[in-house]
Amino acid sequence: MEETARLQRVLEKVASGVLSPQEAVLQLKQEPFQDLGYAKVDFHRAFRQGSQEIIYGAGKTTDQIIGILQAMKQRDCHNVLVTRLSEEAAAVISSAAPMDYHKDAKIGVAFPAPHPSLGKIVIVTGGTSDIPVAEEAAITAECLGNQVARLYDVGVAGIHRLLRNLDTLTSARVIVAVAGMEGALASVVGGLVACPVIAVPTSVGYGANFGGLSALLSMLNSCASGVSVVNIDNGFGAGFLASRINQMGGLS
Amino acid sequence: MEETARLQRVLEKVASGVLSPQEAVLQLKQEPFQDLGYAKVDFHRAFRQGSQEIIYGAGKTTDQIIGILQAMKQRDCHNVLVTRLSEEAAAVISSAAPMDYHKDAKIGVAFPAPHPSLGKIVIVTGGTSDIPVAEEAAITAECLGNQVARLYDVGVAGIHRLLRNLDTLTSARVIVAVAGMEGALASVVGGLVACPVIAVPTSVGYGANFGGLSALLSMLNSCASGVSVVNIDNGFGAGFLASRINQMGGLS
Amino acid sequence: MEETARLQRVLEKVASGVLSPQEAVLQLKQEPFQDLGYAKVDFHRAFRQGSQEIIYGAGKTTDQIIGILQAMKQRDCHNVLVTRLSEEAAAVISSAAPMDYHKDAKIGVAFPAPHPSLGKIVIVTGGTSDIPVAEEAAITAECLGNQVARLYDVGVAGIHRLLRNLDTLTSARVIVAVAGMEGALASVVGGLVACPVIAVPTSVGYGANFGGLSALLSMLNSCASGVSVVNIDNGFGAGFLASRINQMGGLS
Amino acid sequence: MEETARLQRVLEKVASGVLSPQEAVLQLKQEPFQDLGYAKVDFHRAFRQGSQEIIYGAGKTTDQIIGILQAMKQRDCHNVLVTRLSEEAAAVISSAAPMDYHKDAKIGVAFPAPHPSLGKIVIVTGGTSDIPVAEEAAITAECLGNQVARLYDVGVAGIHRLLRNLDTLTSARVIVAVAGMEGALASVVGGLVACPVIAVPTSVGYGANFGGLSALLSMLNSCASGVSVVNIDNGFGAGFLASRINQMGGLS
Amino acid sequence: MEETARLQRVLEKVASGVLSPQEAVLQLKQEPFQDLGYAKVDFHRAFRQGSQEIIYGAGKTTDQIIGILQAMKQRDCHNVLVTRLSEEAAAVISSAAPMDYHKDAKIGVAFPAPHPSLGKIVIVTGGTSDIPVAEEAAITAECLGNQVARLYDVGVAGIHRLLRNLDTLTSARVIVAVAGMEGALASVVGGLVACPVIAVPTSVGYGANFGGLSALLSMLNSCASGVSVVNIDNGFGAGFLASRINQMGGLS
Amino acid sequence: MEETARLQRVLEKVASGVLSPQEAVLQLKQEPFQDLGYAKVDFHRAFRQGSQEIIYGAGKTTDQIIGILQAMKQRDCHNVLVTRLSEEAAAVISSAAPMDYHKDAKIGVAFPAPHPSLGKIVIVTGGTSDIPVAEEAAITAECLGNQVARLYDVGVAGIHRLLRNLDTLTSARVIVAVAGMEGALASVVGGLVACPVIAVPTSVGYGANFGGLSALLSMLNSCASGVSVVNIDNGFGAGFLASRINQMGGLS
Amino acid sequence: MEETARLQRVLEKVASGVLSPQEAVLQLKQEPFQDLGYAKVDFHRAFRQGSQEIIYGAGKTTDQIIGILQAMKQRDCHNVLVTRLSEEAAAVISSAAPMDYHKDAKIGVAFPAPHPSLGKIVIVTGGTSDIPVAEEAAITAECLGNQVARLYDVGVAGIHRLLRNLDTLTSARVIVAVAGMEGALASVVGGLVACPVIAVPTSVGYGANFGGLSALLSMLNSCASGVSVVNIDNGFGAGFLASRINQMGGLS
Amino acid sequence: MEETARLQRVLEKVASGVLSPQEAVLQLKQEPFQDLGYAKVDFHRAFRQGSQEIIYGAGKTTDQIIGILQAMKQRDCHNVLVTRLSEEAAAVISSAAPMDYHKDAKIGVAFPAPHPSLGKIVIVTGGTSDIPVAEEAAITAECLGNQVARLYDVGVAGIHRLLRNLDTLTSARVIVAVAGMEGALASVVGGLVACPVIAVPTSVGYGANFGGLSALLSMLNSCASGVSVVNIDNGFGAGFLASRINQMGGLS
Repeated sequence: MEETARLQRVLEKVASGVLSPQEAVLQLKQEPFQDLGYAKVDFHRAFRQGSQEIIYGAGKTTDQIIGILQAMKQRDCHNVLVTRLSEEAAAVISSAAPMDYHKDAKIGVAFPAPHPSLGKIVIVTGGTSDIPVAEEAAITAECLGNQVARLYDVGVAGIHRLLRNLDTLTSARVIVAVAGMEGALASVVGGLVACPVIAVPTSVGYGANFGGLSALLSMLNSCASGVSVVNIDNGFGAGFLASRINQMGGLS
Repeated sequence: MEETARLQRVLEKVASGVLSPQEAVLQLKQEPFQDLGYAKVDFHRAFRQGSQEIIYGAGKTTDQIIGILQAMKQRDCHNVLVTRLSEEAAAVISSAAPMDYHKDAKIGVAFPAPHPSLGKIVIVTGGTSDIPVAEEAAITAECLGNQVARLYDVGVAGIHRLLRNLDTLTSARVIVAVAGMEGALASVVGGLVACPVIAVPTSVGYGANFGGLSALLSMLNSCASGVSVVNIDNGFGAGFLASRINQMGGLS
Repeated sequence: MEETARLQRVLEKVASGVLSPQEAVLQLKQEPFQDLGYAKVDFHRAFRQGSQEIIYGAGKTTDQIIGILQAMKQRDCHNVLVTRLSEEAAAVISSAAPMDYHKDAKIGVAFPAPHPSLGKIVIVTGGTSDIPVAEEAAITAECLGNQVARLYDVGVAGIHRLLRNLDTLTSARVIVAVAGMEGALASVVGGLVACPVIAVPTSVGYGANFGGLSALLSMLNSCASGVSVVNIDNGFGAGFLASRINQMGGLS
Repeated sequence: MEETARLQRVLEKVASGVLSPQEAVLQLKQEPFQDLGYAKVDFHRAFRQGSQEIIYGAGKTTDQIIGILQAMKQRDCHNVLVTRLSEEAAAVISSAAPMDYHKDAKIGVAFPAPHPSLGKIVIVTGGTSDIPVAEEAAITAECLGNQVARLYDVGVAGIHRLLRNLDTLTSARVIVAVAGMEGALASVVGGLVACPVIAVPTSVGYGANFGGLSALLSMLNSCASGVSVVNIDNGFGAGFLASRINQMGGLS
Repeated sequence: MEETARLQRVLEKVASGVLSPQEAVLQLKQEPFQDLGYAKVDFHRAFRQGSQEIIYGAGKTTDQIIGILQAMKQRDCHNVLVTRLSEEAAAVISSAAPMDYHKDAKIGVAFPAPHPSLGKIVIVTGGTSDIPVAEEAAITAECLGNQVARLYDVGVAGIHRLLRNLDTLTSARVIVAVAGMEGALASVVGGLVACPVIAVPTSVGYGANFGGLSALLSMLNSCASGVSVVNIDNGFGAGFLASRINQMGGLS
Repeated sequence: MEETARLQRVLEKVASGVLSPQEAVLQLKQEPFQDLGYAKVDFHRAFRQGSQEIIYGAGKTTDQIIGILQAMKQRDCHNVLVTRLSEEAAAVISSAAPMDYHKDAKIGVAFPAPHPSLGKIVIVTGGTSDIPVAEEAAITAECLGNQVARLYDVGVAGIHRLLRNLDTLTSARVIVAVAGMEGALASVVGGLVACPVIAVPTSVGYGANFGGLSALLSMLNSCASGVSVVNIDNGFGAGFLASRINQMGGLS
Repeated sequence: MEETARLQRVLEKVASGVLSPQEAVLQLKQEPFQDLGYAKVDFHRAFRQGSQEIIYGAGKTTDQIIGILQAMKQRDCHNVLVTRLSEEAAAVISSAAPMDYHKDAKIGVAFPAPHPSLGKIVIVTGGTSDIPVAEEAAITAECLGNQVARLYDVGVAGIHRLLRNLDTLTSARVIVAVAGMEGALASVVGGLVACPVIAVPTSVGYGANFGGLSALLSMLNSCASGVSVVNIDNGFGAGFLASRINQMGGLS
Repeated sequence: MEETARLQRVLEKVASGVLSPQEAVLQLKQEPFQDLGYAKVDFHRAFRQGSQEIIYGAGKTTDQIIGILQAMKQRDCHNVLVTRLSEEAAAVISSAAPMDYHKDAKIGVAFPAPHPSLGKIVIVTGGTSDIPVAEEAAITAECLGNQVARLYDVGVAGIHRLLRNLDTLTSARVIVAVAGMEGALASVVGGLVACPVIAVPTSVGYGANFGGLSALLSMLNSCASGVSVVNIDNGFGAGFLASRINQMGGLS
């Protein structure tokens, strides 16, 4: 554990007289994040969680985003994800920090660099309208170093479209199931495969859909085992978690 | 139309002097229902709607139910359905009016008589726990003169159980799909068949099921066309409507 | 059943040596839909469900819709419905695919061709503001080959307007009842007729209407038998289901 | 106005020297209620509101109710209503204070005395199961001096039962419409009459009724003018308000 | 009763040979409303309910409104209310039908004519932001022939503002209490007066106000007797009902 | 700050050679709570928060509660509150640990000892049925060393009962306002005083009260400033917070 | 108490003949607020509540706000807060009344004057997007004479950012915890400190956040004692209450 | 893929004449489940999903459960989980099928046999009352062959209890976070670790907890990445999914 090791190292320096107790207190209290006032950029996260800070773009000004990116650049960060980023904001930010922008996913990838493409995450959607959320998951997972297969518009109203793609489904280490309306896709997929399924309800629909509540409740009540759920329209969260699971090593 | 014809007949009697205007007013106002004080038994219904009064047992005393049954007996009613009837209440009522009691469905059939078994209604359930609601639909439909096929525990978590019964599904003139939890069964069935599907959400489940809300919203948001929905746990309503549709004659 | 017959035919070819097992596997797995990437157009549906794919226009780009239409044209589809289509999008699409546009209903009918006008579907509304949803149902039903009668603004606050049209109501094989606010129309109509009633809650209203929730709950709790419900504002779904029921043949 | 007059009288006594300013302050602050610790019995109410305190029995012990009744007896109160009172509690209280108990309405009337029977309040219910709530309204209104006509089980699923009683409806000065399930009765009645309609949603029903929410929303969204709503199952409130309106004098 | 009398008259003509039975059927079925296709203008209403049709402007085109107004003009209607009418629509309509427009209330009064000013309706609001809803009630009540007193911004957070106006409150025959946020005004007013109180929850507020739900539930749960509730922001409904109650004659 | 000081002390021991780095790591990680397996009793809390652990009795077995009490006894704790404790459970526990039980409040006070009675907390309720929640707050506050004044049944439906007690209200340093139904009491009190008001919604009521939701929303939307809210029926939380505020020292 | 003293003074004048009873009634009824028709400006509030009227800007026209400000200016008010004020409205008002405008907080401070900076209020936010609500609280508290420390973007997903600022947290007399999404910040902070914590849920988030409902429920259910909650996004309310608590004197 | 291989094998037999086409159709349609009428036991699941059928005990009779167990016994199943099983039902079933019963978890394990104990799943709870749900997850995971560490009562109100157990947390391959009330535990844990976190909201709490809704929404809106959610109180689902993730092999 990082924190224990760091404490041990500091204490050893105190024991050997290299550090006075006062200096040690100071050092132990030193912040592993950079305080920009409006944001505290978390550099400790790579150690603690194995992945660097990701910027949630909604509700931040372009100035704030540029500020955070510059702080991260100084620590040599690459492939920094900026999610929920409008095309206009991306254009502004690009002039200050190099960035690949994915329009469907509304994700910017700052300081792009090559990344691996490991394992296999399969992302399925119920319909065409669910694609933006699915792409948020897909781009996130790809940037985090995973191989992604897309299987779009295979909703349960024409279940043969899903069944004809069983090979793809069963080849997955993790599946992300994205669906709005009644969200039944997650249960059907969950009943067909042996790998973890991350369900993403979308707000696609109208009326008694109530902004995605319908698909959300469906997925939470899935009669298939092995299914868990993230927030409505949270493609990023699903892609991030899928990456974590996909990259898990063996039990040996 | 019954009402027009009745008016015409009365007017003819007035024109021919058989009836005075005052007598005609009285007769036209005569009630086609019997007033028991606590209930107004609707004998007009058979003309208006092609089916006799059905008694909703919940919230009525056994005395009230017996009273209504006796009024109906005097008009020679048979196979009168009493729904939501507890086993105890059925026992009490049976001593006053002959009644077949169906325990799973909680339905009593008073003054039982032979009935036809027409067409084909298929009733499917997602799980074993949905059976009481399904039986309410099944007994209702059978008493109203329909042939019923039962296909229970074929939920989407093991979709091969449903697919192996496609022959039964496609032989139906109407399907009643009964499911709790995520209620995905209705959409999957709706996507497989060409006949009307009546979806019945059940309160089976727990937690974010919220008493059947989850299945209800799912079914209302079904991405399959040809699906309509009745109230949570309303097996009777589904069976009644299925009967109406099943017994529709040709267009010729 | 289509699938069984197809399997039987393929197996016979294998038995007679016309097809190798490997070829058979391939053929059996061949997709009865066309994959456009963003959409999997379902040509199997006509066999499975007796009606061709209908395009839900909301949330699709005009390019996507044109793409799907072109795929369908190659299979000689006519009277293809595109629902929830804005007037602007319809104008764009019309230049690529001939289309009749119904403004009230927001429905485009691509590759228009003559169609029959069978049976009788009656569509009633509670008020003038419910007409767009009613028209979505009406145009859908007409394009699917049904005769439609419209009875608008006959809500229960002035019930004599409804009662004076009893002849029209009782002439229906199916009724679609469209109402917002308290949605009482469905119950009153349901109590007057002997045919199936499809209730469509609308989002017309304000305040404690909560986007149509009020009418939805009313209709689900209808004390009249023979009523089922579709999603809020789902005129299409009601028109489609009404068509299915209206076109049911006899029991002979 | 009572308060102004009282102030005037006290000030006149101060001006005339009968009262010192200090005594006046005391007197003006004297409480027009009796403090029992757990309850402050409001004797001011008869002046302020034209009716004496009514005791809401639910959540009070029989000792507390007896205590309040005894305090009221000392001020010569008659026909004191105790609502939401169980039969068991009524039996206990009766031994301490003479009381007529109405079982259906769950109302006790303490220190019963003759009362007038003025005007005309008509109470209608949708079904038999709504009768207990209707009786709470009826007994309340009768005890407050009003003539009450009951019209039960005239729900909209068999609307001829209601229409045949138009004479009774139109003879009312106020109507109380009690209904569960879809609560459509209030709108239909509201559209037929020219007097105020007080709608009482009941919790009768199941499933998507959600404890009376369905009828409540229906009634709030009534498309008929002249309808207002009280709390779910609040028969007392409707009876009390109906009494107030029924007893309003002329404009002359 | 109007309907009975009409029936009697027609029957007498049949008895005397003035009318053949066939002609009588026709005449009895003749519609007491004018069918414009998109609307069925209800002229029967003045007889049935003592007030003419009122036009709910939201969701109707200016053409539709003008059409309805012209139909009403032919029957010599005056002071026709058009509610929920935007200033722009009012301008358009005014050129076709003379109309006074009340901007705060968003009400147009077509074919204006002098009207009486009877009794006393007091309209109170919790805050300044509730005034538009209060004005909808006030203008409605005034046009229907009632005297209206306005008492605005007397919410419970500074209850002395309300208490200093007790004279006005107690002079009312009916009170309309309009409040958003926590809606406590209705209960406090209800506890101070002896006349009926119509509570109008408004959508004024934010956050846990949930579009007026907070005030709505408050008012429905009012611990004061004599309070009933209309829909959120339904100033018209409150003004209409207040008029009905205010104009009730004596019991004599 | 406790944690910093502790760190400083340990580091000084390391610098002086009294402690090896390894021993220091161990010591720094030592738990300031006692682990009973099913509970981790928090002894650190007195330092961190100025008050000892309080035991939430609901959902714990009497054995678990006794275990926790015994662990606390060993550290000489007194006046340990056990909330939501049934009378039966209290009897069982009393035999193992001396305990005063308050029946209305459902609170047990273990190892009772004298405590101070500082400042002034006033607790008001809307009705008699709110008393149990109020008593939970009162007993909690008293045990934590505060003087408490009770003012019960002063709801807004008879606002003179509240106004006659203005002296008590204005003498408070903190007020706890407990009310169910429409919860208007909090706003009215909040508008009358200059001290902080803690509002406690109760589940007292029925129907559209929805288990306290009505009062909760009312209080959150209070138009009076200086009001904050705790959970429905959370008398303990209100009493605890009132104590904290009441015992705040001066600014000097 | 102000009211009692005023009454005493008036009565003394009556006793001494300086005032006639009629004049006294008049004077006692004189309004301690100024009636602008659309608003009743509450000058009594400074006496009653120790703070002057604050203007809720949303839903008021600039003319109305200027009117209220001018009335307040005549009574020599300073640092008058106008909350929920758009930048455009502020510009208009500034030309009529001198005003400092705080853009993030959307607060205008009219007739600015020096104010003290007492005690210590610490305002923490979970994220960067919560800053506008936090600033509403901060500016409010500062204008009311309190010292404010800001600690932004210290949400629980990187809890070390919060723990490294324990010194600031524990130096507070009151803490305002502002958070959207899951709102966990309030519980974590509540568990770390011994002072009152005012939790402000924000509407920051999407999907199952449901406009702030998620954070609101979290905070109401906080397992930490000493936490109370204000309305969603109600920064002003939190700042106002924090000021009240912070400025409480000692118990001495 | 199993299904493809099975098809291939059957087709090869047809090609070689071992099977006639008709026999092949029959064999391909043979059900990989056993139909008990009330249940269709899914033996295909072990192939399809790598785990055998699990029996959801709630809503099934003991006879039904015994029937399913006997069918599974014939296929040599071991360690069959029966969840949501009351102690009484377990006693009855035990006499027919050997079963270990876990009282806290309400799980029966039929036909018990030794199982491995692989990897590391850590299960944390916020409080003592969450233990039954946590045990449902723990027993499920253990029976499926995983090593489980329990860390109970480490909720965020005393966050040092959690922080002192960082070693255990960081040693996990998967974490199950079980919490009621505000459910903040999931976010805090999610921010501390690099492995997948499965959040289980519990219904522990009262009032605005609304049966677990509070914790559910909190967890869905978690600001920490890597967290997904299952249904309220769904310990089984979390344990099952944790097992799937824990047993994932390497990428190599």
